[in-house]
Amino acid sequence: MANAATRIVGLDPGLRRTGWGVIAVEGARLRWIGHGVIAPPEAAPFAERLLALLEGVAGVCAAHYCDEAAVEEVFVNMNPASTLKLGQARGAVILAPARAGLTVAEYAPTMIKKAVVGAGQADKAQVAFMVRRLLPGAGDVSADAADALAVAIAHAHYRTARRAA
Amino acid sequence: MANAATRIVGLDPGLRRTGWGVIAVEGARLRWIGHGVIAPPEAAPFAERLLALLEGVAGVCAAHYCDEAAVEEVFVNMNPASTLKLGQARGAVILAPARAGLTVAEYAPTMIKKAVVGAGQADKAQVAFMVRRLLPGAGDVSADAADALAVAIAHAHYRTARRAA
Repeated sequence: MANAATRIVGLDPGLRRTGWGVIAVEGARLRWIGHGVIAPPEAAPFAERLLALLEGVAGVCAAHYCDEAAVEEVFVNMNPASTLKLGQARGAVILAPARAGLTVAEYAPTMIKKAVVGAGQADKAQVAFMVRRLLPGAGDVSADAADALAVAIAHAHYRTARRAA
Repeated sequence: MANAATRIVGLDPGLRRTGWGVIAVEGARLRWIGHGVIAPPEAAPFAERLLALLEGVAGVCAAHYCDEAAVEEVFVNMNPASTLKLGQARGAVILAPARAGLTVAEYAPTMIKKAVVGAGQADKAQVAFMVRRLLPGAGDVSADAADALAVAIAHAHYRTARRAA
């Protein structure tokens, strides 16, 4: 049986913990498919931690037949060493869908909150609440996974809006 | 005929230009193998530029039968947005040898200068001069490629020193 739904993977990159969330979108209907966290061993050499992120996210994309990917734009008001580290992790995370031929959309945090909650200044608890409401199948999601699912929801929203325009 | 030399790829990551240089080391003897620059199309989507870096460096590693990789540690006294961009490019560049099973060594700029010139405070012109002198086969190398070859030379130096210790 053919499946007309588009699978979107939302990604919340971090060197220690990268959250992911997959949803299916068919018209205005959203359906939860899966979510989780990739946490490379912290004692491993740096290059291997990046590799674990790349292959971990690649595995998620393949296992859930993802069609498109979305990631949050990053604020860079942290210290420079952390920014560099996050940048390297983010590069590894973005490369996984790109390598598989998926487009990778980027959204500012305010755009994500606006799409999920309806207000650009919503706090994390409001986002998590709406993620659970929009995706009842997801159950009680962790903060990392809620952020990842929120990016996926935002992409579902804006891609439809773009097509309608 | 068996080749006992170890091939080292030195990498100088950047989103717009990533320099690479490959040398062969056999005991204390160094030999130039190749060098160049990978410059992804600037108009391409960000994820595709990262992918061009990953696959470009992977191609270099494969084409020159590289055994080990080395990269310069990064200074992060630039602006945060640039640091994030460089981080992502650096992640993509490091992932290529890691994915192929190569170790990726990192060296501080002062360690590289010390290994190549003999002084940690050498300037870029002195480094380029010594790179050309140590690797006469390289000809007149560009600044990006000289930096990449310098990292490779430094790795050849320190890996031998570690073994002798």
